[in-house]
Amino acid sequence: MATERVDNLAGERRKAEFDVEAMKIVWAGSKHDLDVSDRIARLVASDPVFGKDTRTTLDRKELFKNTLRKVAHAWKQINELRLTEEEASRLRFYIDQPAYVDLHWGMFLPAIKGQGTEEQQAKWLPLAYKMQIIGCYAQTELGHGSNVQGLETTATFDPQTDEFIIHSPTLTSSKWWPGGLGKVSTHAVVYARLIVDGKDYGVNGFIVQLRSLDDHSPLPGITVGDIGMKFGNGAYNSMDNGVLTFDNVRIPRDQMLMRVAKVTREGKYVPSDVPRQILYGTMVYVRQGIVSDASIALSRAVTIATRYSAVRRQFGSQNGGPETKVIDYKTQQSRLFPLLATAYAYRFVSEWLSSLYTDVTQRLQANDFSVLPEAHACTAGLKSLTTSITADGIEECRKLCGGHGYLCSSGLPELFAVYVPTCTYEGDNVVLQLQVARFLVKTVAQLGSGEPLVGTTAYMGRAEHLLQCKSSVQNPEDWLNPDVVLEAFESRAFRMSVDCAKNLAKFSKPKEGFSELSADLVEAAIAHCQLIVVSKFIDKLKQDIPGAGVKQQLEILCSIYALHLLHKHAGEFLSTGSLTSKQVALANDILRSLYSKLRPNAIALVDSFNYTDHFLGSVLGRYDGNVYPKLYEEAWKDPLNETVVPEGYHEFVRPILKQHLRMARL
Amino acid sequence: MATERVDNLAGERRKAEFDVEAMKIVWAGSKHDLDVSDRIARLVASDPVFGKDTRTTLDRKELFKNTLRKVAHAWKQINELRLTEEEASRLRFYIDQPAYVDLHWGMFLPAIKGQGTEEQQAKWLPLAYKMQIIGCYAQTELGHGSNVQGLETTATFDPQTDEFIIHSPTLTSSKWWPGGLGKVSTHAVVYARLIVDGKDYGVNGFIVQLRSLDDHSPLPGITVGDIGMKFGNGAYNSMDNGVLTFDNVRIPRDQMLMRVAKVTREGKYVPSDVPRQILYGTMVYVRQGIVSDASIALSRAVTIATRYSAVRRQFGSQNGGPETKVIDYKTQQSRLFPLLATAYAYRFVSEWLSSLYTDVTQRLQANDFSVLPEAHACTAGLKSLTTSITADGIEECRKLCGGHGYLCSSGLPELFAVYVPTCTYEGDNVVLQLQVARFLVKTVAQLGSGEPLVGTTAYMGRAEHLLQCKSSVQNPEDWLNPDVVLEAFESRAFRMSVDCAKNLAKFSKPKEGFSELSADLVEAAIAHCQLIVVSKFIDKLKQDIPGAGVKQQLEILCSIYALHLLHKHAGEFLSTGSLTSKQVALANDILRSLYSKLRPNAIALVDSFNYTDHFLGSVLGRYDGNVYPKLYEEAWKDPLNETVVPEGYHEFVRPILKQHLRMARL
Ligand SMILES: Cc1cc2nc3c(=O)[nH]c(=O)nc-3n(C[C@H](O)[C@H](O)[C@H](O)COP(=O)(O)OP(=O)(O)OC[C@H]3O[C@@H](n4cnc5c(N)ncnc54)[C@H](O)[C@@H]3O)c2cc1C
Ligand SMILES: Cc1cc2nc3c(=O)[nH]c(=O)nc-3n(C[C@H](O)[C@H](O)[C@H](O)COP(=O)(O)OP(=O)(O)OC[C@H]3O[C@@H](n4cnc5c(N)ncnc54)[C@H](O)[C@@H]3O)c2cc1C
Ligand SMILES: [Ca+2]
Repeated sequence: MATERVDNLAGERRKAEFDVEAMKIVWAGSKHDLDVSDRIARLVASDPVFGKDTRTTLDRKELFKNTLRKVAHAWKQINELRLTEEEASRLRFYIDQPAYVDLHWGMFLPAIKGQGTEEQQAKWLPLAYKMQIIGCYAQTELGHGSNVQGLETTATFDPQTDEFIIHSPTLTSSKWWPGGLGKVSTHAVVYARLIVDGKDYGVNGFIVQLRSLDDHSPLPGITVGDIGMKFGNGAYNSMDNGVLTFDNVRIPRDQMLMRVAKVTREGKYVPSDVPRQILYGTMVYVRQGIVSDASIALSRAVTIATRYSAVRRQFGSQNGGPETKVIDYKTQQSRLFPLLATAYAYRFVSEWLSSLYTDVTQRLQANDFSVLPEAHACTAGLKSLTTSITADGIEECRKLCGGHGYLCSSGLPELFAVYVPTCTYEGDNVVLQLQVARFLVKTVAQLGSGEPLVGTTAYMGRAEHLLQCKSSVQNPEDWLNPDVVLEAFESRAFRMSVDCAKNLAKFSKPKEGFSELSADLVEAAIAHCQLIVVSKFIDKLKQDIPGAGVKQQLEILCSIYALHLLHKHAGEFLSTGSLTSKQVALANDILRSLYSKLRPNAIALVDSFNYTDHFLGSVLGRYDGNVYPKLYEEAWKDPLNETVVPEGYHEFVRPILKQHLRMARL
Repeated sequence: MATERVDNLAGERRKAEFDVEAMKIVWAGSKHDLDVSDRIARLVASDPVFGKDTRTTLDRKELFKNTLRKVAHAWKQINELRLTEEEASRLRFYIDQPAYVDLHWGMFLPAIKGQGTEEQQAKWLPLAYKMQIIGCYAQTELGHGSNVQGLETTATFDPQTDEFIIHSPTLTSSKWWPGGLGKVSTHAVVYARLIVDGKDYGVNGFIVQLRSLDDHSPLPGITVGDIGMKFGNGAYNSMDNGVLTFDNVRIPRDQMLMRVAKVTREGKYVPSDVPRQILYGTMVYVRQGIVSDASIALSRAVTIATRYSAVRRQFGSQNGGPETKVIDYKTQQSRLFPLLATAYAYRFVSEWLSSLYTDVTQRLQANDFSVLPEAHACTAGLKSLTTSITADGIEECRKLCGGHGYLCSSGLPELFAVYVPTCTYEGDNVVLQLQVARFLVKTVAQLGSGEPLVGTTAYMGRAEHLLQCKSSVQNPEDWLNPDVVLEAFESRAFRMSVDCAKNLAKFSKPKEGFSELSADLVEAAIAHCQLIVVSKFIDKLKQDIPGAGVKQQLEILCSIYALHLLHKHAGEFLSTGSLTSKQVALANDILRSLYSKLRPNAIALVDSFNYTDHFLGSVLGRYDGNVYPKLYEEAWKDPLNETVVPEGYHEFVRPILKQHLRMARL
């Protein structure tokens, strides 16, 4: 078919003032990353098995079976095409459907790598790499989540048989939530209280086989199933989050993960020489991935909302001409462009986090644990900040699309529903900020004690200055100076931490004070985390960034990111005395002009994410902007349109119209 | 079965310091309202046809048929039990499943009442009341929503046959979104451009029959269908939002709704003596209903999160005792209690809006249109404010429930998904606030001109004072004085409006200025709307409120409502100079102590909403707090648990485990 290609957004694309191909490399991280992503994304998009069209209309069983098919097909492709590990992981990513393999690769394997001895790794990892066993990560219980130390499942050593007895003593000790557990996993890393000789040694991981490798039936003593429907159609319902109880299930002693402590044949608990902190390394790694995913989820939503906003017209028609594109309204810009800037900001902070991870890993190997508390706080805080904002941001993008954003064909409802649990798993976002706050308060308390200020807390070294400095801003343009912005964010964050510390000092019991002031402490922690993101964006701009106009665009985005936060949290900048009302107002003025500067580049800036229409899964976000004909086409695919007269009409509608129901009473 | 009744929340209920039964009356509006609601809610809850259990697992067709069944059963009950109109509407409400009847009763009938002549009403209303015809409201088009004047559908008068020809000239003119249209409605009020003798008279309503009353097939020239899946499982997918195109469909001339203007047999367009403004009356009515629904949706979510927070325990166990209830954490309180207070605040402002509606109706009948602009702005702004906050509030409640909030059995995902479009329909929330802003700027411009300040803008009469006043707050307790709170809100709102007006004056073209500053204008509009809610809550407290301790609780809620807003928008209070940093900090101090005061009453305050477990539809929000056993029970009902080994295992999982896929490549 020689149909002409539509590109309703061609005019928008011509407006771009920078080299889009160069920006694609910046976003991807490198030319290599871009090439791999691009190739694999196209591969997935062109394969009918990976089609996403019907996903939101499938019922649970159909959706689940469809997911199993995609996973199997992916595995076949990975092997047939001899994909590298990097390519394989890109492939799973672009399939864009949560599945049991996510936990197998993302949690089961890393848990064994992180917590298993070398022997254990040698035994289990090859099985897992080849998928001869499929594993999940079974920590959370029906009654216990955030507080891992509260888990009730027990693993009692039986010296007679050299086994552990895994047992669920109560209903609330049922394992609950692990992904991949419900229907697929053959194995799990199960977290349970280690009991040796009547003594409770706290929570430890154990490799437990759950299902027969012959016929997939649960092994004796094991009850396992799916926990039911979750938020949204499609979305996370392709995952078999599960429930699991143990009735005195026995496993060999050597299936306790023994890297940091072991139980001997004689029933002795022996800590190894590997320090417990080593386990935090994995956490940094996992959370870095979550921050990177935040930038991806947000940029997807922003792409959809931006493209549709440049297609959608509403009001403002002059003499019968076309109406105004909604992207030209300042309210639309003030909601959309900060999210676009945020997506870029999160991208760069995640890039930085991955270098932090490399650094931390090297130090851990050299037995240097000094940076751990800071690295831990910083990743916890960034996980919390970026996922909260991304979740809200996706929903805002949906609203920016007006009524049509409510249709599943917009892709946004599913993107939201699948994303939101990120705010809860891997640490509830509030619980995480409380950890950051605890770290900040401690850091402030130690100021002047000679304790070195590492990493992202280095700015606190200029305590005197930050408490006294007055911002030099006098004109709107002054806000374009990164040093000025940075100082304002540092001053606000530091003063908030110091204020908290002062208020805490008024309590005789520190614990009571911390609890009473916890809402304020969370705000201080967030301010600190926002500062980190701003400062890493500014650092990025100090690098050499090739490509015509690319750096200029990133500078605009960086300013928008920082100044929209300043506007949103003006109360904190003002009440800490970091800025004057006048200065805050000037920031708002320059922000408006930055929106105008960004406007002609908006489409090109989302094109730079290089997402395929398959990955976006949105009629509104189509690359070609051909929205209306496609929306119309999509509608007719709904199962309800299979018949003109709906099922149930004769039984339930006609009797009303014909007054048969009404007459019944007379 | 003589099973013992559990009440895990009995201890919480005993803590209450007020008369819950009296509070129920306050919430319901009157003893009569409470009795009716209570009776009908129980009726619905006890009828198996109205069960909600399977809703989120049904596929589209099943869900839709299930909805038709419920509607038919409701109609049967309404007739058999000879329910009054009030009772019937309560019944539909408690069934809690969006259905075509919502539009029939809520939009189709009111449109004919509001826009039809007496003759037209006499002809069509009886048919609609008896449901011999079923109608919907067809305004929005694929390419046109917010801007109603941009609609493309035409209604051209044909003097030869005394008919209108209804036609869809383009793809974008397809009607798109009307609820009830897709599969059920036999008729619609269709909005189209009235064309008489080549002249375009703008948009008007027409009654158009869509489907045969004999066999339900679409009439000639009419193409109609469903627009497909929407956000969430269950949720709004029980509604058949539809698409509709006309290919020169002819209707008799007298099916044009002719209350404000008619077309004569000779083809003359003749405005009637009924002023167009009369149509705004309906808008006030509809939006008052939306504000009332906001208080209900939010209070439902808050009920679930509050009860579950008093069941859920996490951390803080002392010497092996139970962990701390999460409701006792200050961060949890600072997120939850303001939402509880907000639900009450919205309830009272909706109560006030319904009295405003009565007042406006009486004035309109007396040809007094003076209050219309103010009433219109005020209802638009309150619709926007309350629905935005409620949508976000429901999601916050979901997050407050940790992981379990993500399960459909929590009820929260569906509540969110079904609620969010309220931010878009009946006026996009941003577009509405821009209307409010326009009204405010105009009001400010007229200050001192002698133009009377009506209704909610009366405070602007004290312009001088509000621009200069300094808050008297010196101690935390000063914030408990309603006059002090009111003045702070008035001062902030007024100063923001005045600042906007000043900044606008700097532009030579007012329209350009308005567009450039629109984001700030929206903020000023929101500040004005928040003031209205605060002031109506304070007014409510001036009434006589019977019941031990009831008024005291409402005072606490009112303070929490106002002061949490003050904290959230501190930047505006500070930058307008309405408050000092110190005063803002004092507000935050008293807020914390108000949370502690509210804490023992939290469960009783949500009990006062008097919601049945059926209506809540949430395992986490159960009245008896028996959460864990019921969550566990629910899980096993998922279709995936029908078989131990999932469908697709043999085809798609076993080949992986057995390395058949892997080997294939070798
Ligand atoms: C989609 C999804 C997938 C998951 N996958 C897995 C998996 O594969 N394996 C696994 O083991 N688990 C998994 N989980 C479970 C997840 O890790 C937990 O849900 C998460 O840790 C949050 O814990 P919770 O549910 O107990 O929340 P809770 O801690 O009960 O949170 C409830 C409320 O209490 C508050 N709160 C809790 N403690 C405190 C405190 N100390 N101070 C102040 N406030 C507090 C929280 O902020 C929240 O508002 C998954 C969960 C989801 C939703
Ligand atoms: C669940 C649901 C049910 C519905 N039921 C019906 C029904 O029964 N009958 C019916 O006729 N319709 C119905 N509608 C349609 C509904 O009324 C429209 O979706 C609504 O009016 C919003 O218009 P829109 O979709 O065109 O949004 P748009 O106006 O296209 O909004 C897109 C974006 O543009 C922005 N924008 C638009 N104009 C301006 C401006 N002037 N200045 C600044 N920003 C602007 C908006 O803020 C938004 O961010 C329904 C919609 C939904 C979602
Ligand atoms: Ca089915």
